[in-house]
Amino acid sequence: MSALPADTETSDTQASDSLADQMARLGRDARAAAARLSTTPAAAKNQALAAAADAIRQARPAILAANAADLEDARRAGLSGAMVDRLLLNDARVEAMARGLEEVAALPDPVGDTLAEWTRPNGLRIARVRVPLGVIGIIFESRPNVTADAAGLCLKSGNAAILRPGSESFRSSRAILAAMQAGLAAAGLPAAAVQMVPTADRAAVGILLGMSGVIDVIVPRGGRGLIERVIAESRVPVIRHLDGNCHVYVDGAADLAMARAIVGNAKLRRTGVCGAAESLLVDRRAAATHLAPIVRDLLDGGCEVRGSAEVAAIDPRVVPATEADWSTEYLDAVISATLVDGVEGAIAHIERYGSHHTDAIVTDDETAAARFLAAVDSAVVLHNASTQFTDGGEFGMGAEIGISTDKLHARGPVGAEQLTSYKYVVRGSGQLRP
Amino acid sequence: MSALPADTETSDTQASDSLADQMARLGRDARAAAARLSTTPAAAKNQALAAAADAIRQARPAILAANAADLEDARRAGLSGAMVDRLLLNDARVEAMARGLEEVAALPDPVGDTLAEWTRPNGLRIARVRVPLGVIGIIFESRPNVTADAAGLCLKSGNAAILRPGSESFRSSRAILAAMQAGLAAAGLPAAAVQMVPTADRAAVGILLGMSGVIDVIVPRGGRGLIERVIAESRVPVIRHLDGNCHVYVDGAADLAMARAIVGNAKLRRTGVCGAAESLLVDRRAAATHLAPIVRDLLDGGCEVRGSAEVAAIDPRVVPATEADWSTEYLDAVISATLVDGVEGAIAHIERYGSHHTDAIVTDDETAAARFLAAVDSAVVLHNASTQFTDGGEFGMGAEIGISTDKLHARGPVGAEQLTSYKYVVRGSGQLRP
Repeated sequence: MSALPADTETSDTQASDSLADQMARLGRDARAAAARLSTTPAAAKNQALAAAADAIRQARPAILAANAADLEDARRAGLSGAMVDRLLLNDARVEAMARGLEEVAALPDPVGDTLAEWTRPNGLRIARVRVPLGVIGIIFESRPNVTADAAGLCLKSGNAAILRPGSESFRSSRAILAAMQAGLAAAGLPAAAVQMVPTADRAAVGILLGMSGVIDVIVPRGGRGLIERVIAESRVPVIRHLDGNCHVYVDGAADLAMARAIVGNAKLRRTGVCGAAESLLVDRRAAATHLAPIVRDLLDGGCEVRGSAEVAAIDPRVVPATEADWSTEYLDAVISATLVDGVEGAIAHIERYGSHHTDAIVTDDETAAARFLAAVDSAVVLHNASTQFTDGGEFGMGAEIGISTDKLHARGPVGAEQLTSYKYVVRGSGQLRP
Repeated sequence: MSALPADTETSDTQASDSLADQMARLGRDARAAAARLSTTPAAAKNQALAAAADAIRQARPAILAANAADLEDARRAGLSGAMVDRLLLNDARVEAMARGLEEVAALPDPVGDTLAEWTRPNGLRIARVRVPLGVIGIIFESRPNVTADAAGLCLKSGNAAILRPGSESFRSSRAILAAMQAGLAAAGLPAAAVQMVPTADRAAVGILLGMSGVIDVIVPRGGRGLIERVIAESRVPVIRHLDGNCHVYVDGAADLAMARAIVGNAKLRRTGVCGAAESLLVDRRAAATHLAPIVRDLLDGGCEVRGSAEVAAIDPRVVPATEADWSTEYLDAVISATLVDGVEGAIAHIERYGSHHTDAIVTDDETAAARFLAAVDSAVVLHNASTQFTDGGEFGMGAEIGISTDKLHARGPVGAEQLTSYKYVVRGSGQLRP
């Protein structure tokens, strides 16, 4: 701006700044806020979360008005019913956001925990201490409630957040952000602890992904297209959440009633979540006893079954599966199904076609269960329980920012603890290295 | 090969395969080996490490002959004396490799540790259990001993390794690899647990960096050029090891004798290691008492001092510092030096110019020390000890594959434990999600 003659300056410097300048300022402010948050006591962070919850309740009319404007544009743009539903806020959803922040406030503070501690023969005392990551960039799609959920988890874990909501929900997110910042102000914390990119323009995403050295980690939350774009373009490390091609393996030693209940729940409780089962594997030993009732339950429950030849022989409603079915995450009332040769056959099938997200075995044979739990290389492996339990809330983590399919850093549900790093604190009395 | 008519087939299928085919086979074999290693008991892995140590001792003549050939080429190519020294193996260095493997064998096995365990109100028992990462790619430069060190740490942590040694040390590394594989064979473990790319051709590095889904993590070990290329090109997550622009802050309340000893050790014990101090910060309160003796010690010890105006006024041998000096990692007998305003001034200087690697405070004031240790955002922060202690061996981790400057996953020294991930093992009795 300094290059402009005074008479061309506008009163709205934001609008006349370039997007790159605005993003650079956002980054600088976030780093300063992160430095402050890294040593902010738990009480102040929790006070800000509680005040933000109150502010969200008080701002309900403003939030719903902003959301109504977003919804009107969405309908005009011809967004699908499912998309509009994801975008929609109502009294209950606003209240759920406020309560979510209160639940995060009630969680233990992960920052400052001593993870390990030891003394060396030379007297050096070494401690591995949990610290925040720093600045977290969160890129998400249409659900505006992510604004409060993600900001709350980042604040709890002592991180500054830069949010990039979906363009459809930009006004809703801005209204929620105002309430979050009121909460920060009430606790005397910097407003830059939670910021939003200045524009829904996709160019802001590109700049965000290049802010290596300013942003410590990017968390994309959305469909496969978004996540693949982020992975391909980002110069900043990414915590990824890719496919959940989840399997239920029904072992020959499974209790039939339990197997039927678990398969039904894993597939049909909600079909659009990443922990939903997408593939049914039945032990060849149980083909005569377990296969038909389980497959008929699914068909009767309105689920399309795409089966191998042996499965298709069970019922004329079964559709023959193609090779592509074994690797497909349907996120719908569809399941692939095949026989396998015992637990080793199940392990091999899952290694070949699975996505290392969530896989379950149903069996009364403890040896088979132990082998499956040890050998299946997935973020979550379950014995005699539904795959749909893969969820931060169900795991008792209070809230989550997503389910990581990475092996580095965070795997499975990503809660406040997973948004931290550690550092080594070494205390000496003048030790020199020989 | 199947497309070739029989009469054109050569007896050496490797040579006629394309590099891409060979790398794909390497990847498949590594994944199969990783699946096997993930459930291999500690005793078998330790047996392989001990047998590999013996095999290295027995193969000493062959290893030294291969190294002599590498050295001859290096001298002919005009490599610097320092490069030739890094490449050189002798009896003592071969013995050190063998002993290093025995030390790794003696470490506790990180795999299978239960990191946390809890029961949910619905009776689900959830355990977070340590598992190997899978397949690790290690790209390094001229030191051939990295072949044994890296392979040993990967094996200990249940990971398959694919090594890409520097082209100068390719024959030496191949001879060491043969001994590693003899060790694997003695313990009945697959040879593909430790493999090397088939050629020193740089094209192999490019293929390695694209093997996402096959390789779980890349660890580059070498100079900045290598690491920047890997970060820029890799489609596989990378554990990075960037600059160590390490600071020693001498507080006004520092014991002068301790400060002189620590600064001297941190800078001059070895100047080429990443934990060497590169910048001296002295509290303005101690300018009259501490600055001159510390600066003169450094100058008398053969260290070039690049100082701010106040530091340059101490001694005519001090060179005036430029802005670039504050961010420079010299890796040489050079240090930058300036006064700062107390512990807050030191924290601000380190945040602005540091590289988040290792920083130390020397003080008898516990409050100042606590503030520095909490606020400086570096992998290792020390109180009254030399920065040169940042090292896996000195930390009691037995061995290391490098010092990570990442905040995600592993930070600081990367030993066997840092080459692992975790998974959630969930045990139920038929629980369904409501």
